[in-house]
Amino acid sequence: MAIQMYDLAGSDPNRRFSPFCWRIKLALAHKRLDVETIPWRYADKAALAFANWDRVPVLVDNGQPVVDSWPISVHLETAYPNNPSLFNGNVGLARFYNSWTDSVLNPALARMVVVDILNHLTPGDQPYFRQTREQRLGMKLEAAAADRESRLPTFRQLLEPLRQTLSAQPFLGGDSPLHPDYIVFGSLMWPRCISELRLLDADDPVNMWSERLLERFPVARDTPRYW
Amino acid sequence: MAIQMYDLAGSDPNRRFSPFCWRIKLALAHKRLDVETIPWRYADKAALAFANWDRVPVLVDNGQPVVDSWPISVHLETAYPNNPSLFNGNVGLARFYNSWTDSVLNPALARMVVVDILNHLTPGDQPYFRQTREQRLGMKLEAAAADRESRLPTFRQLLEPLRQTLSAQPFLGGDSPLHPDYIVFGSLMWPRCISELRLLDADDPVNMWSERLLERFPVARDTPRYW
Repeated sequence: MAIQMYDLAGSDPNRRFSPFCWRIKLALAHKRLDVETIPWRYADKAALAFANWDRVPVLVDNGQPVVDSWPISVHLETAYPNNPSLFNGNVGLARFYNSWTDSVLNPALARMVVVDILNHLTPGDQPYFRQTREQRLGMKLEAAAADRESRLPTFRQLLEPLRQTLSAQPFLGGDSPLHPDYIVFGSLMWPRCISELRLLDADDPVNMWSERLLERFPVARDTPRYW
Repeated sequence: MAIQMYDLAGSDPNRRFSPFCWRIKLALAHKRLDVETIPWRYADKAALAFANWDRVPVLVDNGQPVVDSWPISVHLETAYPNNPSLFNGNVGLARFYNSWTDSVLNPALARMVVVDILNHLTPGDQPYFRQTREQRLGMKLEAAAADRESRLPTFRQLLEPLRQTLSAQPFLGGDSPLHPDYIVFGSLMWPRCISELRLLDADDPVNMWSERLLERFPVARDTPRYW
């Protein structure tokens, strides 16, 4: 039985942009596990009631629900020890990447593309999204995204630790990608899937790394995206 | 023959505060390698000429010089494979910690304590330090450190990825420390050794982690420091 995963979708069911879901789709591909993704919208809370959870990703593996992107990645590593390792025996070392992405990268990305996200959602999801995100941001979505081109240099400066690392080695994991690559790259798939604004210069080492990952992973390369 | 290491010292030769040197002193302790540290000042460039290098740490291992903190850590791992591992087979995964510390943490720390550093240097080192650091900072040292108490909340916010990680597990390496712990903790030893300003609240998970490391490593616990 293939693994199933509830995956955030826009009004186009094929447009899948959640950074947390991308982490897991890439982790599944790394571990060479087949998955059936089920498009999910914010309004579908009831569809996740079986897992006692209210957001995605939710995985169903062998009939058992596993929720939240970090525990799901650890579950995949533990449940499929003979498949290619996501952590090379160092789950602990990966957590800082998760924390940095959640607390630094994602908030910065959200402010760049929050209106694009809104515009890709179903009409049913838009009021919920606007209300919860405006509360989180403390301002109107349009105000958060205003003048975003002028904020690009500041945004790119935030990526400096990534840039330094990826100037010295091809992947965050070293010579080949590991789960930390998917955590960070998953967040870059978010704007790529819903916004025309290219956040990275072509010759930025961070962009070149993301191109290497796209080349490796058809699930990301072939998904509907703007860049 | 014990390993020798050139280690930045203040006017008091026992006051050793360089974050890059701390990385290596902790790495050496982790690998249970004895080291003879040689106090070094910025004015002693000639003392490092044998290594064709101009700053510390410089290691002399079996008569061979090894320079710069990252290559030194990789050298220790490679040259002493039977001693406790610094990287658990994942040198690549550690590099982002190095990049984050160098590009985010250290510049923020420098602005907090740059005048304290100056005050602990030998009179011979002070003009060099002032000139090079004022050039790097683009302002007088006193201006960089001004109103630092009011900047503490912003500084502490920068540590959020560490805080999230260390709220979930005892060390960056997981259940026990690895080289990424020493990279980041080495930078916190810097202000601890030369400034009375406590940068962390006692109950901050980042502070509690640093206390766990002090307890584990007498080389850090017993060094002259303010906190």
